[in-house]
Amino acid sequence: MIGIENIGTYLPERKTSNYDLMDHFDIDEHFIENKIGVRETTRKEKGKKSSDLGCKAIEDLLFRTGLDIRNIDCLIAVTQNPDTNIPHISARIHGQFECKEECACFDISLGCSGFVYGLSVIEAFMKDNGLETGILVTSDPYSDIIHPDDKNTRLLFGDGAAATLISSKPVFESGKFNFGTIGKRYKELICHDSNLSMNGRGIFNFAARYVPKDVYAILEKNNLEIGEVDVFLFHQGSKFIADTITRKLGIDPEKSQFHAATYGNTVSSSIPIMLKDYIEKDGMKNILISGFGVGLSWSSTILNKL
Amino acid sequence: MIGIENIGTYLPERKTSNYDLMDHFDIDEHFIENKIGVRETTRKEKGKKSSDLGCKAIEDLLFRTGLDIRNIDCLIAVTQNPDTNIPHISARIHGQFECKEECACFDISLGCSGFVYGLSVIEAFMKDNGLETGILVTSDPYSDIIHPDDKNTRLLFGDGAAATLISSKPVFESGKFNFGTIGKRYKELICHDSNLSMNGRGIFNFAARYVPKDVYAILEKNNLEIGEVDVFLFHQGSKFIADTITRKLGIDPEKSQFHAATYGNTVSSSIPIMLKDYIEKDGMKNILISGFGVGLSWSSTILNKL
Repeated sequence: MIGIENIGTYLPERKTSNYDLMDHFDIDEHFIENKIGVRETTRKEKGKKSSDLGCKAIEDLLFRTGLDIRNIDCLIAVTQNPDTNIPHISARIHGQFECKEECACFDISLGCSGFVYGLSVIEAFMKDNGLETGILVTSDPYSDIIHPDDKNTRLLFGDGAAATLISSKPVFESGKFNFGTIGKRYKELICHDSNLSMNGRGIFNFAARYVPKDVYAILEKNNLEIGEVDVFLFHQGSKFIADTITRKLGIDPEKSQFHAATYGNTVSSSIPIMLKDYIEKDGMKNILISGFGVGLSWSSTILNKL
Repeated sequence: MIGIENIGTYLPERKTSNYDLMDHFDIDEHFIENKIGVRETTRKEKGKKSSDLGCKAIEDLLFRTGLDIRNIDCLIAVTQNPDTNIPHISARIHGQFECKEECACFDISLGCSGFVYGLSVIEAFMKDNGLETGILVTSDPYSDIIHPDDKNTRLLFGDGAAATLISSKPVFESGKFNFGTIGKRYKELICHDSNLSMNGRGIFNFAARYVPKDVYAILEKNNLEIGEVDVFLFHQGSKFIADTITRKLGIDPEKSQFHAATYGNTVSSSIPIMLKDYIEKDGMKNILISGFGVGLSWSSTILNKL
């Protein structure tokens, strides 16, 4: 059996306070604290790229585990902001850490649903090819594609990365997965010429309608009642989105908190950044993870603590 | 069991003749016919994007099979030239064909090794998630990133796409796969600001050294002797690369021909474009496929004709 053994993360120290932007965007504390829920957003150093953030997250993973990364069998990176489109960032990271030549590397292009999709992809790929140790990197520095005057995105997105170790010594075993796509609505979250554009209302409506429905479906697929789930880790699109999903499902708010107040929406890294805190926490069995966004797309599963 | 059921392809009608470029690049017929082996390169219409080429290949697949694409369970696209980085092109294609919402979509970023990697990814993903029907699209219109004065790339790369149907009614069953990466050499094939740059000598040396070694390894992994392989489909980097690999392995040239003379190196689509001709051909059992390029990376497997 393979599954998640550990998680390393990287959140840049440099931050922008949304309180400093209240005049610029004509917003108040209530909007910051209760609507978006994001008080500060992390900002990478200028010139640092997607692969640099991924390497930082891997360094944290190596520090936590003592893993000899040269021996990993695969390295898969989820990003939609690669350093360059050719080559994939997983090859750059592979070179940086001098991994062995018999290591499979490729990138997956997905946004906020990318960690959950990527988890299924890496686990399936490793099982089918008999691989023992792999790393799933998520890294999407949105600060490079956010216009400073765009209220819809600048107040929300923070830079961050995660590196999830998949091995035959898992702490979490994945249950069955759900996946979905509404391709005809792809324009609601799109990037043209390095300018991200998000239809905030459209994305909110999508999440509020599709995610609760998907939560019921993934519970049924895994033969679980909603009360048997100990923690719900929803992609941290905004506090308003997370709260709406929580309320619609009638979940105890203690089980579904907003975690991103001091760093923001880190896209595909939002779920592993939260999940890291549960690696060594006892007293829980089932964690539901659910990612949704660019595509439009969504994916969910149940992580069973071993 | 799942595997390749059928393949649709798209090669633009518009072509550039390399004979017309002999003065521009100071080359002769011998160079065209024996060294690169590419007499013409296909060129998409201006303004057409990666997803458009992928849709054309899917149309060919639907024409050949009568498949109702609305019911497919996953759509995975291999590209390093997406229409935009956000969203992935598989979501655009999903929307174009009005596929069902319960369809998993994501893109894989890989170059000339992308079909073989992608085949393993889609088959593993489908098996692990119990999916029945999926399409692997490969589409990489390099003409958008080639400088007209760059001899290393303009004479070689052609635009093209393929759509490979994976189902529980396979014609080919995949054997075991090999994968590899030399990340520290990623700069030998790279794209900056929409300008592709290839170290032709470096890529040739890489292919000539690594691919024959990998062929022996994949044969051993699948318990086959080299004489038991009926056809070798090497990525069509150039005639000189394909011939060198063939010669180094001592393969009968009849079993390892150069196919891309009238369209060029179509990156991740080169193998499925060749493989399409063998879907309905009898009298063969084992086809070896091997892709190599961007990353630097490579992947190979044996396809068993059922």
